[in-house]
Amino acid sequence: MDIRCLIIDEMHPSILPLLDQIGVQVEYLPSIDRKGILAIISSFHGIIVRSKIDLDLDFFKHADNLKFIARAGAGMDRIDLEEAKKRNIILINAPEGNSNALAEHALSLLLNLMNKIKTSDSEISRKIWRREENRGYELEGKVAAIIGYGHMGKAFAKKLSLLGCKVIAYDKYLINFSDQYVQEASLEEVLNKCEILSIHIPMNTENHQFINQGFFNKIQKNIWFINTARGEVLETRALINALNNGKVIGAGLDVLENEKLHQLTEQQKKDLRDLLSIDSVILTPHVGGWTYESYERINRVLVNKILENKKLIQS
Amino acid sequence: MDIRCLIIDEMHPSILPLLDQIGVQVEYLPSIDRKGILAIISSFHGIIVRSKIDLDLDFFKHADNLKFIARAGAGMDRIDLEEAKKRNIILINAPEGNSNALAEHALSLLLNLMNKIKTSDSEISRKIWRREENRGYELEGKVAAIIGYGHMGKAFAKKLSLLGCKVIAYDKYLINFSDQYVQEASLEEVLNKCEILSIHIPMNTENHQFINQGFFNKIQKNIWFINTARGEVLETRALINALNNGKVIGAGLDVLENEKLHQLTEQQKKDLRDLLSIDSVILTPHVGGWTYESYERINRVLVNKILENKKLIQS
Repeated sequence: MDIRCLIIDEMHPSILPLLDQIGVQVEYLPSIDRKGILAIISSFHGIIVRSKIDLDLDFFKHADNLKFIARAGAGMDRIDLEEAKKRNIILINAPEGNSNALAEHALSLLLNLMNKIKTSDSEISRKIWRREENRGYELEGKVAAIIGYGHMGKAFAKKLSLLGCKVIAYDKYLINFSDQYVQEASLEEVLNKCEILSIHIPMNTENHQFINQGFFNKIQKNIWFINTARGEVLETRALINALNNGKVIGAGLDVLENEKLHQLTEQQKKDLRDLLSIDSVILTPHVGGWTYESYERINRVLVNKILENKKLIQS
Repeated sequence: MDIRCLIIDEMHPSILPLLDQIGVQVEYLPSIDRKGILAIISSFHGIIVRSKIDLDLDFFKHADNLKFIARAGAGMDRIDLEEAKKRNIILINAPEGNSNALAEHALSLLLNLMNKIKTSDSEISRKIWRREENRGYELEGKVAAIIGYGHMGKAFAKKLSLLGCKVIAYDKYLINFSDQYVQEASLEEVLNKCEILSIHIPMNTENHQFINQGFFNKIQKNIWFINTARGEVLETRALINALNNGKVIGAGLDVLENEKLHQLTEQQKKDLRDLLSIDSVILTPHVGGWTYESYERINRVLVNKILENKKLIQS
């Protein structure tokens, strides 16, 4: 059986020769819309997606012949995983392809806050040269806590450890993962000890607003906070309160609860206004895993995983 | 003999008990001006300085009893070293106290540029959410070159190496310093291979505008450029040209040729305007070595070195 695969999002062009090499036929339709996808998906065995559409029950009803879904990235939160499982659809993602990119981005946000790069640069653009007020803090020696010890959390933990942090990590689903870079910890230990906190959990029903007001209240020290996971795992208002009362010294956010800035609710508008009014907040547009290097590396990871599953797909 | 020491700059208050512990008498006069210093310096054996005044021939003429100069920081460029040597004055500085701070700051500037944090954050403040345009570059795997392999260059080299860069370093005065983190290189190799270039040479007559137009012309690849050393070692206009023609992708500058922003020459005004107009330039107000941690650590380094030299000072 020939494998036919539909690509619905813009991908690095290397995906086409790579799929060709493993004998997969491709339709590359990066401009297709949801309606168009539903109209033709029944003739494909596989779909490669970034984040154009939700792969929900309605989608699956149209996808009679679907054998695999390949996500060019890590997060599977826009896929109805239960339904996919019910239909024995093989799920592929590529966190190995962009975990270094994400860890470097998280480090950038953190160092920017600790060294007051944003305020310094902004002041100089207004001809203000203030040294004492822009004195920074050192990463070396700080206790950094990672929540969620998957590919992303692990990659960032290693970098922090190499730069001299004491790194502790909590993962609800993992045990016995301490190594030379990281020490496994309970959630309570994280709350008691962290001076830097970075979130690396997926978005799903149980993680919705996992970081909320009660969570910040239980943190013992003043911290730097980084979220490169998903906006919905954080209660934005609680973070704003924690910034205002000093519990959070600075926050670097690569993700927002609603990333469509022109479709915000009134509350989301107010939250964004408040975040933007705080100097020690840095926002980036969900590009943590997006580098020129990862763009191409993700393709190799996906195609290797499709190849590994080729027999299963053809069966 | 009792050792009497004058402190002319603001210091972390820990300096007072530390000097007391080693039996040094202190006058702490952080608000004193040059005239005041010259009026009383003859009654002191030591002076602790940051950067308030030039310790020039005129100063030394007033400092009949001076046995040591302790610089709370690394750079000795505001001290007439030849004259100090002639007078057998012991010179103490404290690069060990702020090299980690400086290396973390240099890393912040570099990662900020490579991950487009500044442009991303600025766009979001204007409700612009652009992902493809803010795709970053990864540090891991890049060739980073360090010019000047003293305490600062070495500290930054180690971090870059731990984060996965191939680090090469050139130092006019050092040989046989390759180790697990860095490979010694000729200036030619640096020019041929570097993708990231960071400057860590002191300012002195021979280093004035060491990085000039001819230097940028000889660099083979397009690079990220970091200067946390001294503004005067760089020909600012040459950097602006290199930014404009793409040879320099981004520049992070913690130092400027003239850091008194309200006393700039016409040329310096134009240079600053041009730097500020380029999105891929980040400026910070000479705070590379300035952290809360280094502020206190510098004192311990200085006082230990004064203690080591105590017999010599008293002789």
